[in-house]
Amino acid sequence: MPGEFDIIDKYFAPLAGPEGLALKDDASVWAIPSGFDLVVTKDILNEGVHFRTEDPPDLLAYKAIAVSVSDCVAKGASPAQYWLGLSLSQEPNDDWLRNFCGGLKRAQQDFGCTISGGDTTKSLGGLTVSVTVAGLIPSGKMIKRSGAKVGDAVFVTGELGNAALGLHELLSGKYGSSELVQAYQSPSPPLVFGQQLSCVANAAADISDGLIADAGHIARQSQVRLQIFQDRLPVGQLARAMVEREAGLAQKIWSGGDDYQILFTAPVSAEPMIKKIARESKTLVTNIGEVTVGDGVQLLDQNNEIVHVTSGGYEHF
Amino acid sequence: MPGEFDIIDKYFAPLAGPEGLALKDDASVWAIPSGFDLVVTKDILNEGVHFRTEDPPDLLAYKAIAVSVSDCVAKGASPAQYWLGLSLSQEPNDDWLRNFCGGLKRAQQDFGCTISGGDTTKSLGGLTVSVTVAGLIPSGKMIKRSGAKVGDAVFVTGELGNAALGLHELLSGKYGSSELVQAYQSPSPPLVFGQQLSCVANAAADISDGLIADAGHIARQSQVRLQIFQDRLPVGQLARAMVEREAGLAQKIWSGGDDYQILFTAPVSAEPMIKKIARESKTLVTNIGEVTVGDGVQLLDQNNEIVHVTSGGYEHF
Repeated sequence: MPGEFDIIDKYFAPLAGPEGLALKDDASVWAIPSGFDLVVTKDILNEGVHFRTEDPPDLLAYKAIAVSVSDCVAKGASPAQYWLGLSLSQEPNDDWLRNFCGGLKRAQQDFGCTISGGDTTKSLGGLTVSVTVAGLIPSGKMIKRSGAKVGDAVFVTGELGNAALGLHELLSGKYGSSELVQAYQSPSPPLVFGQQLSCVANAAADISDGLIADAGHIARQSQVRLQIFQDRLPVGQLARAMVEREAGLAQKIWSGGDDYQILFTAPVSAEPMIKKIARESKTLVTNIGEVTVGDGVQLLDQNNEIVHVTSGGYEHF
Repeated sequence: MPGEFDIIDKYFAPLAGPEGLALKDDASVWAIPSGFDLVVTKDILNEGVHFRTEDPPDLLAYKAIAVSVSDCVAKGASPAQYWLGLSLSQEPNDDWLRNFCGGLKRAQQDFGCTISGGDTTKSLGGLTVSVTVAGLIPSGKMIKRSGAKVGDAVFVTGELGNAALGLHELLSGKYGSSELVQAYQSPSPPLVFGQQLSCVANAAADISDGLIADAGHIARQSQVRLQIFQDRLPVGQLARAMVEREAGLAQKIWSGGDDYQILFTAPVSAEPMIKKIARESKTLVTNIGEVTVGDGVQLLDQNNEIVHVTSGGYEHF
């Protein structure tokens, strides 16, 4: 059974970049390049709340990084470093640590960031993984929630609902090799697209709580209304087939969480540029609505009738 | 019962600085002043491991910030911002939140930092508080563990053992208004002294795991030996009285943790400057030993005999 410092030396230190000082100091040190702002986000995943005890440790580690990277990417920033907090309810064994760090390594490669420090502790409760990610963005260019303007179009990257439907598959016991399950377990925030977003977007947020809830954040902070057209929502084939089998699942498209795509608003005139960036970064981007005077979010069906939204996103309390 | 977003708006947002965007966005954004490096540390406190369920929430919040600030201060950096991760096992009530945020506010005032973001989640286990602190230091000036040089003197700020003896008081049920208990519950990292330390110190670490253990970190990373003289250790009156009553407690002076003082090495020629900085910042600083060729840490008694150290600091696993 490895000790705390052995764990750090053997498993985490090889993942560190120069700023992490091989995880051998009390802190990391980072010479921020001039001309850049630092964008920082933090997320926690708790056993039994955000993940299941039986979830594979490599997928858990990957997701823990991805969900914080997602916030960073939605703000237009490039993830650079992260700090990992790990509270373990049991003495970790080498297998678990090897798998967990395999997931971290894969996330580092996919998202371009390295571990710079953290803390590994014992907990009397379940496993908790907390990740703080810091990214860089050219000075003054962070895309806030508060910048949406009346007349903007509303866009979303990727497909909606895959993760929530994947979780439904998992929980209903129909576990397979479905891409929906993969969307839930291994989120893919659109990193390359996001890095070009600050040239065109007025406001942005990642979709973690569900499309309607996160659109609500933008509407509230920008003091506008977001009108979203149901029949424009990007829904993949597998998701569409599932909703056709079980109509009650349709709301997972707009109210399910865990998409980790980017919702953003931009002037209509920017649409050609957005399509170009999307094409170059091989990212699906869909115009799903418009910003109007008013407040809140309206989901409209094909007859322009307001769809009653039953769930407004996840709150912990 | 407040909801998650209500909690953030009502309790945490008033503590945020401009970089935190009133905690209304997905991330914070920070224009790092040029000429400075960013020093980042992260610590986790778990219920039942690092604190007791009955510990007052304001003291818990204060300590959660102080322990990360301590690492930052020991590196010579000035704490500036922090991100708070809170996993709550129960729905929080207003009393608890008010008290907890009172502790955060007090810590912010004492340590000169503001909250810039975080995450508040439900946990099925106990309460977990994770804090990431970022501080600033003039470029290239961070004091590492690895810089100790043969011939350096070894110094420590403040008094040793107070916190460990305070915890002993608490656990043995002799709870009073003792300053020792206060040292355990409300650590006071020497902020002002630390900010001048990078002019003089070759190596530094905060004492969180206990003097001998943390001296061991410096010895290992610097590839030197630290010789520490037992009769020079700064021990306060209350601690001395307790050890006189119960001799077995003496080892808490050098092996107890939670001191959150700074252990550092510096050239002997720097001692007058160190005394000046100490005087100006009203900080007790004691020369407790020297750096020699070799490895590890030797604690020597008044006859220069090696003291057998029974505990080498706390490891979680």
